[in-house]
Amino acid sequence: MTAADAYAELVRRSREVSTLNSCAAVLGWDQQTYMPPNGAGLRGDQMALLAGLTHAKATDPKVGELLAAVEGTDVVADAESVEAANVRELRRGYDRSAKLPPRLVEELARVTTQAQQAWQQAKKASDYPAFRPWLEKVVKLKCEEADAVGYKAHRYDALLDEYEPGATAAEITTLFAGLTAELAPLIRKIADSPTKPDRGPLEREYPLDRQKLFAESAAAAIGFDFAAGRLDTTSHPFCTGIGPGDCRITTRYNPRFFSEAFFGTLHETGHALYEQNLLREHFGTPAGWACSLGIHESQSRLWENQVGRGRPFWDHFFPRLKQTFPVAIDGVTPDAFYSAVNDVRPSLIRVEADEATYNLHVALRFEMELGLLSGDLSVADLPGAWNERTQSLLGLTPPDDARGCLQDIHWSFGGLGYFPTYTLGNLYAAQFMAAARDQLPGLDDDFRRGEFGRLRGWLTENVHRHGQRYRPGELCRRATGTPLSAEPFVRYLTEKFAPLYGVC
Amino acid sequence: MTAADAYAELVRRSREVSTLNSCAAVLGWDQQTYMPPNGAGLRGDQMALLAGLTHAKATDPKVGELLAAVEGTDVVADAESVEAANVRELRRGYDRSAKLPPRLVEELARVTTQAQQAWQQAKKASDYPAFRPWLEKVVKLKCEEADAVGYKAHRYDALLDEYEPGATAAEITTLFAGLTAELAPLIRKIADSPTKPDRGPLEREYPLDRQKLFAESAAAAIGFDFAAGRLDTTSHPFCTGIGPGDCRITTRYNPRFFSEAFFGTLHETGHALYEQNLLREHFGTPAGWACSLGIHESQSRLWENQVGRGRPFWDHFFPRLKQTFPVAIDGVTPDAFYSAVNDVRPSLIRVEADEATYNLHVALRFEMELGLLSGDLSVADLPGAWNERTQSLLGLTPPDDARGCLQDIHWSFGGLGYFPTYTLGNLYAAQFMAAARDQLPGLDDDFRRGEFGRLRGWLTENVHRHGQRYRPGELCRRATGTPLSAEPFVRYLTEKFAPLYGVC
Repeated sequence: MTAADAYAELVRRSREVSTLNSCAAVLGWDQQTYMPPNGAGLRGDQMALLAGLTHAKATDPKVGELLAAVEGTDVVADAESVEAANVRELRRGYDRSAKLPPRLVEELARVTTQAQQAWQQAKKASDYPAFRPWLEKVVKLKCEEADAVGYKAHRYDALLDEYEPGATAAEITTLFAGLTAELAPLIRKIADSPTKPDRGPLEREYPLDRQKLFAESAAAAIGFDFAAGRLDTTSHPFCTGIGPGDCRITTRYNPRFFSEAFFGTLHETGHALYEQNLLREHFGTPAGWACSLGIHESQSRLWENQVGRGRPFWDHFFPRLKQTFPVAIDGVTPDAFYSAVNDVRPSLIRVEADEATYNLHVALRFEMELGLLSGDLSVADLPGAWNERTQSLLGLTPPDDARGCLQDIHWSFGGLGYFPTYTLGNLYAAQFMAAARDQLPGLDDDFRRGEFGRLRGWLTENVHRHGQRYRPGELCRRATGTPLSAEPFVRYLTEKFAPLYGVC
Repeated sequence: MTAADAYAELVRRSREVSTLNSCAAVLGWDQQTYMPPNGAGLRGDQMALLAGLTHAKATDPKVGELLAAVEGTDVVADAESVEAANVRELRRGYDRSAKLPPRLVEELARVTTQAQQAWQQAKKASDYPAFRPWLEKVVKLKCEEADAVGYKAHRYDALLDEYEPGATAAEITTLFAGLTAELAPLIRKIADSPTKPDRGPLEREYPLDRQKLFAESAAAAIGFDFAAGRLDTTSHPFCTGIGPGDCRITTRYNPRFFSEAFFGTLHETGHALYEQNLLREHFGTPAGWACSLGIHESQSRLWENQVGRGRPFWDHFFPRLKQTFPVAIDGVTPDAFYSAVNDVRPSLIRVEADEATYNLHVALRFEMELGLLSGDLSVADLPGAWNERTQSLLGLTPPDDARGCLQDIHWSFGGLGYFPTYTLGNLYAAQFMAAARDQLPGLDDDFRRGEFGRLRGWLTENVHRHGQRYRPGELCRRATGTPLSAEPFVRYLTEKFAPLYGVC
């Protein structure tokens, strides 16, 4: 077999695994949207079976042989080629998968499917004890996973690496400490400012059917392709890129709070634009996969916040908002509305947090995860630790666990190590946006006219189309000219909020 | 390996194939309900991959070895045991699959996928010549399939056996001839009767949201478990039993025709009650699978017609109907409504036919299929033969092929041998219902009170819970005391329609 043949066979196998994964993605979407509750048991078995089949194919020693037959040959001689990137990332995935015992993979699939169901019930009833045994199982299994994968400094690194290739707990600790130090004074100044936006206009009656139409129109305006996707309702919003021509997003509607569905939809649309603009011809190979969760999150944050909470965006959308919700927006000025959607104040729910305090929520979860994985924090002690740290970081105490440590779905699906990518996303988003503004003068004028094509084109060109051709840090350097730094994000927040709150 | 071990391994493998099939069932449901249009290409790849995996597992020679290791041992010594039934039916399925050359399986999959596409276009344009070459290919491949599977008397038997194990063309011919001879005079008398129900009340405005609520309330009343299923909207109604705790039905709403969604929902609910009451512990083995398509259809027909078009049912539901649709039902008496839903008159479209004439449509298709498979009827001559026989059976001539031999999807997906199960379903339904009435006095009083639990319990006890433990004929004999006969059905129709139409 020539190296070229081996490469072709690697690609064929990778596509097959991806197609199998895309079946699981449909089942996962269905589980969150339309599956009847009693279907959960079977769904666990289905997911476990697919995960087992996928794992068997992904860890087939033949893949190792094929990789070895391609590595170091002419096929991958150009380190910047698609072929080289594919082989590099397939090697990374193969090595990781091969270290996981099939029993652990299937057990994780089964347990997390049931744990998600248990979490939903427990959250509804604010009943942490009902979720606790499931979380204990998940943490135990994730520790086993990390130990099987291996790590140098901290068990956390082994889990983080799955979401953000190459990142480490030590780096994140440093980055978050610096960011928190920069943000704290800004948040304090804003809290002390006599200027307080009136959130009242956002908390009026927003009829659900109109919210849906308005959210869909905004998603379409920034570029979501509804022939290749859909928008549904779930208790926890998400985006799932099933494959070419099929990317689905969800949101949740609150009849008395405009922001929840609207900014949630912009957020998921940002993710979806990434998925919809990956190169179809690379489907099923790393060159057709998103770079990392941090980069993925940068796309959602960029559209939700950098664009969607900006003044130019609302110069275009405010008149449409007023037309759609004449009662709620009656007597509200564009300035008042712009202030309302940029209200900064500490709150309990991460997904409802403003741009500045959001990162404190992430820092909190990162700390809890470090504790759970190192064994310094027991699952039993989690609610207490959570509430205490919420008080010290945000000055608030959750009145119940539904608004505390039960609020997020992540741990129920085994997503320990996932949260830091949210803050990485904020940082990447600010850095990408600053670079796009530099390279595309007059971007705000586009937005004021409801045109988002130039920005979307820049993102597709500099981020989306590369897939995993470059690692996150390298992608950032190529797109923006500098390595990732918190500076553009802090500058963006300061420049935005200083005039809004009369602080400096 | 002991025989018991071999049996356990057979069950494990059967469950695995079933779980894989249940994944495909979710994807199939999604394809008809919520999949975005551009997802069709990927969906084809996903389905092909799952089908390939399933086929490989089902035809693994190891299954043949395991079967041989169990057959004739103590494990299956009791011919009436679950074990014996499982081994008998797994053998039947394995032999059938193993006899089909992979080339034929693949070609059938490819040709029927394209033939369905061609049929859709041809039906829309009423263009039989456009469909003819596809039907020729399908008939040729189905003949090859039948010849590969083998048969004693008629090639038709090999295809029929897939849907109705053990049934033969000879039996069906006799049964249908007797039935047609009995029905013809009744239908003629009804046609000649001066009493003509007014269908007008069914063709008023029925708001879609209220139709949905009303259909759901009826489905729930007869026993559909919404915690273990759902009702959605599709252009072709269906029921898919994904597995334990997850059975989904669909219907289609016509804003100006009450019967379409309502009786369609009762019909699919009948199928769903069967699926929902199969024994969970036998999931993935023949003992947990429905007995045959004929028995399955008996459950849908029983609830749709025997119960749902009966006077006691409407004694309960009519006041609720009037409350839900005060405008449409304004001035309509219960008698007039009962007559309207029991309008018998020859028509061209099978799926819109009444209880009596429906079976003539099936007899016609059975005759055509016999001719096509034996070679006595060429695909070229089909439209002529169809129209001629429609005239002699129903007294009508289709004005075009869209309302003639192009009306049904079945042949395009290769479903030759499928149609007879519809009439078998009607016959089984009448025979089951007569037996249930004998054994459960006062059943109509139950229905008048909106109570359907005793009937459902009888069906679960006598039909559902047995799965494939008995073949259809034996199941019928055990449940009703006699072999299948057309007599209960003819008696039911006569007793129902004689007073309605003043005939005897």
